[in-house]
Amino acid sequence: MQLGLVGLGRMGGNMRERLRRAGHEVVGYAHDPKVSDVASIQELVGKLAAPRVVWVMVPADVTDSVIEELAGVMAQGDIIIDGGNSRFSNDKPRAERLGKRGIGYVDCGVSGGVWGIEYGYGLMVGGADEHVQRCMPIFEALKPEGPYGFVHAGGVGAGHYAKMVHNGIEYGLMHAYAEGYELMRASEYIDDVPGVIKSWREGTVVKSWLLDLLDRALEEDPELAGVRGYAEDTGEGRWTVEEAIRLAVPLNVIADSLFARFASRQEDSPAMKAVAALRFQFGGHAVKKD
Amino acid sequence: MQLGLVGLGRMGGNMRERLRRAGHEVVGYAHDPKVSDVASIQELVGKLAAPRVVWVMVPADVTDSVIEELAGVMAQGDIIIDGGNSRFSNDKPRAERLGKRGIGYVDCGVSGGVWGIEYGYGLMVGGADEHVQRCMPIFEALKPEGPYGFVHAGGVGAGHYAKMVHNGIEYGLMHAYAEGYELMRASEYIDDVPGVIKSWREGTVVKSWLLDLLDRALEEDPELAGVRGYAEDTGEGRWTVEEAIRLAVPLNVIADSLFARFASRQEDSPAMKAVAALRFQFGGHAVKKD
Amino acid sequence: MQLGLVGLGRMGGNMRERLRRAGHEVVGYAHDPKVSDVASIQELVGKLAAPRVVWVMVPADVTDSVIEELAGVMAQGDIIIDGGNSRFSNDKPRAERLGKRGIGYVDCGVSGGVWGIEYGYGLMVGGADEHVQRCMPIFEALKPEGPYGFVHAGGVGAGHYAKMVHNGIEYGLMHAYAEGYELMRASEYIDDVPGVIKSWREGTVVKSWLLDLLDRALEEDPELAGVRGYAEDTGEGRWTVEEAIRLAVPLNVIADSLFARFASRQEDSPAMKAVAALRFQFGGHAVKKD
Amino acid sequence: MQLGLVGLGRMGGNMRERLRRAGHEVVGYAHDPKVSDVASIQELVGKLAAPRVVWVMVPADVTDSVIEELAGVMAQGDIIIDGGNSRFSNDKPRAERLGKRGIGYVDCGVSGGVWGIEYGYGLMVGGADEHVQRCMPIFEALKPEGPYGFVHAGGVGAGHYAKMVHNGIEYGLMHAYAEGYELMRASEYIDDVPGVIKSWREGTVVKSWLLDLLDRALEEDPELAGVRGYAEDTGEGRWTVEEAIRLAVPLNVIADSLFARFASRQEDSPAMKAVAALRFQFGGHAVKKD
Repeated sequence: MQLGLVGLGRMGGNMRERLRRAGHEVVGYAHDPKVSDVASIQELVGKLAAPRVVWVMVPADVTDSVIEELAGVMAQGDIIIDGGNSRFSNDKPRAERLGKRGIGYVDCGVSGGVWGIEYGYGLMVGGADEHVQRCMPIFEALKPEGPYGFVHAGGVGAGHYAKMVHNGIEYGLMHAYAEGYELMRASEYIDDVPGVIKSWREGTVVKSWLLDLLDRALEEDPELAGVRGYAEDTGEGRWTVEEAIRLAVPLNVIADSLFARFASRQEDSPAMKAVAALRFQFGGHAVKKD
Repeated sequence: MQLGLVGLGRMGGNMRERLRRAGHEVVGYAHDPKVSDVASIQELVGKLAAPRVVWVMVPADVTDSVIEELAGVMAQGDIIIDGGNSRFSNDKPRAERLGKRGIGYVDCGVSGGVWGIEYGYGLMVGGADEHVQRCMPIFEALKPEGPYGFVHAGGVGAGHYAKMVHNGIEYGLMHAYAEGYELMRASEYIDDVPGVIKSWREGTVVKSWLLDLLDRALEEDPELAGVRGYAEDTGEGRWTVEEAIRLAVPLNVIADSLFARFASRQEDSPAMKAVAALRFQFGGHAVKKD
Repeated sequence: MQLGLVGLGRMGGNMRERLRRAGHEVVGYAHDPKVSDVASIQELVGKLAAPRVVWVMVPADVTDSVIEELAGVMAQGDIIIDGGNSRFSNDKPRAERLGKRGIGYVDCGVSGGVWGIEYGYGLMVGGADEHVQRCMPIFEALKPEGPYGFVHAGGVGAGHYAKMVHNGIEYGLMHAYAEGYELMRASEYIDDVPGVIKSWREGTVVKSWLLDLLDRALEEDPELAGVRGYAEDTGEGRWTVEEAIRLAVPLNVIADSLFARFASRQEDSPAMKAVAALRFQFGGHAVKKD
Repeated sequence: MQLGLVGLGRMGGNMRERLRRAGHEVVGYAHDPKVSDVASIQELVGKLAAPRVVWVMVPADVTDSVIEELAGVMAQGDIIIDGGNSRFSNDKPRAERLGKRGIGYVDCGVSGGVWGIEYGYGLMVGGADEHVQRCMPIFEALKPEGPYGFVHAGGVGAGHYAKMVHNGIEYGLMHAYAEGYELMRASEYIDDVPGVIKSWREGTVVKSWLLDLLDRALEEDPELAGVRGYAEDTGEGRWTVEEAIRLAVPLNVIADSLFARFASRQEDSPAMKAVAALRFQFGGHAVKKD
């Protein structure tokens, strides 16, 4: 089928390629004329036969303006898919705004990162049945082969919500491996930490794709000597904990994983300055001076 | 090769079967005459040609007495493998006691649970090179096919240590999935929680064997209605946090996962009784009476 | 000076009393005619000479409508103080709305609970200097004697913000005591847990008002046998963790304390159901059936 | 009464002074002849009339050897008090060894730090009634005036156990304040962080001695600019979490506070290196190079 695709970055560019390999006709637009198939969003929409489906794959902070621009040139019966990392709570307002013009809206969380072009993208979709049905050929082409990798999780917002939880879990999984890794590094018992990690790839309870990637990272740099212990966080981790608060769900592990990223970006910890100052006050414990 | 195997429970019995399928000659001993190949440990040792290898696969609290009994009838040049869940710190003292009699000692952490007979057991081994070499045919038969599933992690104790860390990580991984699961259950956004879990099995960053099992559990009982939120813990989780303390390694995620199990077994939380009592004292906040 | 006071509940009623003891003229309004000094907000405003100060001390969810009603009958140059538990982020929009009518706005976090009438209320205030100055006689009467118990923390919103952090810290403090209490209860070493708590009231690093209250609670019920381990949470605890997320500040202790309250209100933990189900899947570990 | 006192460091020296002010006859011994009253432990014991009481106040790692030396020159009916920071589990073995010679043993946790000389030391005592009774005049002199500051918590070991829990709680309390402090520092809402802390000293739920000390620290250095966010930990914090593990008590807050100290001493976090490496592997997220 035909698809318009706005945004041809690391993710969007690979998705265009995977969709074309599957026989779909993709018209892509990006600011960069070297990768763009058309000169403007208007031209993109003009090249598609109605009823159209346009997939938006741009940074979350510009998604609303892109959708607004699209809506201005699209027509009743068309559908817009947001495949970016929007906060789930933005989806319903968007769907309502588009609905007034007769344009359908589907939100789609996309996992798979740089590996998706080859193995397929995990897709989590929210929206009305009729809209999701219309887009299924696209979803089928993007998802991995086999019975997994796609879910219509619920109404509008459910796709981004499921992707948010996916990422929250991902934070916890990564940190669990990371803690075990650090403990082995610290212990005098283990001579071959990368070897232990590698061995776990089969026959164990902890085997996973993330573990495979950790093994791969250690093959490239066995001591991780070239990597700083510094990690950004994306919106999804924060939103997961915000949802834990809204819904009164205890999420100790995911919150601690998020907080560890916050701490990784601090030069010094103001909290620990206060602890050090207190220890000096009551016990005369030595304080390291800056 | 020949192997003596003491302990034919859920793990030992399956391992005997997998080894025999691979062509090894296994003489198994257990208290239960219905499963035991011999009537006593002495008879087991008598059936093996020197130099012997005997694998001990019994509950951790009887391992030392079984090893003691074995040592009494084994001879210089023999090797004992402890494949049970011993605390790593018991290994070196054991190896020294056995070493005085000229008996070698290898510790082996075994993962894989009820699935190992089919897919192979993840093996983490500690001990001297010469002892590990002698046992390699057994390890080769037990481990999964392919390049993974076995590591000689270091000297005596390293096998149980690596298995301990493996289990500590496992606690964290399981709890990360569990938290994400609970959040989706609590949210009005997700209509099909089992469907989301299932979809994640391919194309996502969180795909893993544990996730496959969670999908399987939800297929059998989509609401987990028949399961109580109650979990025992095994020694390895506790030892992991004890090691975190000994080595000054921050293990927030694994400790929180362990503590969640402790809490799951409490009828009521004494700590929260104190919190409730305090809230009443300073704010007159209502207290639920028992 | 004259003060209008809307809301005469547990807090407002005591504050009226403390203010009157200090010689101020307080006109109080509440729905309940048995405690109210006037029949309506309009009557309350009418009894005050301009420029007026009216303190609003009502539940957070009706604060905006009460302020709206007040604004309709108050005049340029008057001041409204919100002493309730509003989210700090509501303060600036309110101040702007009132500012358009020439009415000043001061937000005031109030601590002290049921003890405030006797010992004074800890006050944390946000607003413009001129507005805060006008209200100082009221603040002076409400606060404890001596150099502490009052701060002008910053512009509009700073008062509720400081109170929010105060309450977040309170969650952590209470939980730290609660954990120590539970550990002593669980240990075979301590014969006299209430005695230990009592002893800590002087000469120790952990002495505090909260500890005094814990001692008091244990005097009334040494085993806390009549209290269930169940605790509500108020908005401030949640907002504190939301702010931690917004500002990328690691708040492990306060978040864990909040999550413990969430968990205290669950009949069973969905997360631990998932953990139990997983343990059964991979290890055949027994599951408690519901 | 007469007391022998071995160890005249920061704590022991001040305790000698406080005891003498109360009219007791204290013979102190320390390696440093400038502060010691006698030239040897033997001389110290010789100066005391039987039955003797000797208080040992030395670093935990030399306590056993000092007690051994004392036991060699003391006699049946004498009592040794260990006021140092011994692990509670050492107390019973010690008491048994001394008991064979007819020497009584009392363990005493001592709080109060540099402030004890003036305000009294919080004492938590374990031991047999008859031994504790004999020592009461000493305890009475050391403790603060009034009904608090002393507890006979149970048999041998209970004193050090109660002190251990005291310190575990202390970790949690300090970290709760520290987190609130950091959040206010990070927020654009609070103009006067030290002012807020100071205000809380009266009229609030969070008032405490530790808060007074934090105020004091901020008076000396309002930005804590001269303090590094680096904190050692003492045995008690670690032992508290070890006991949590032994007794299956969830201690999330205290464990997180302990882990925060571990993290404060790391140049870089190996766990966060692993997280950063993983993020690069699956998402191509930028990694900071060392």
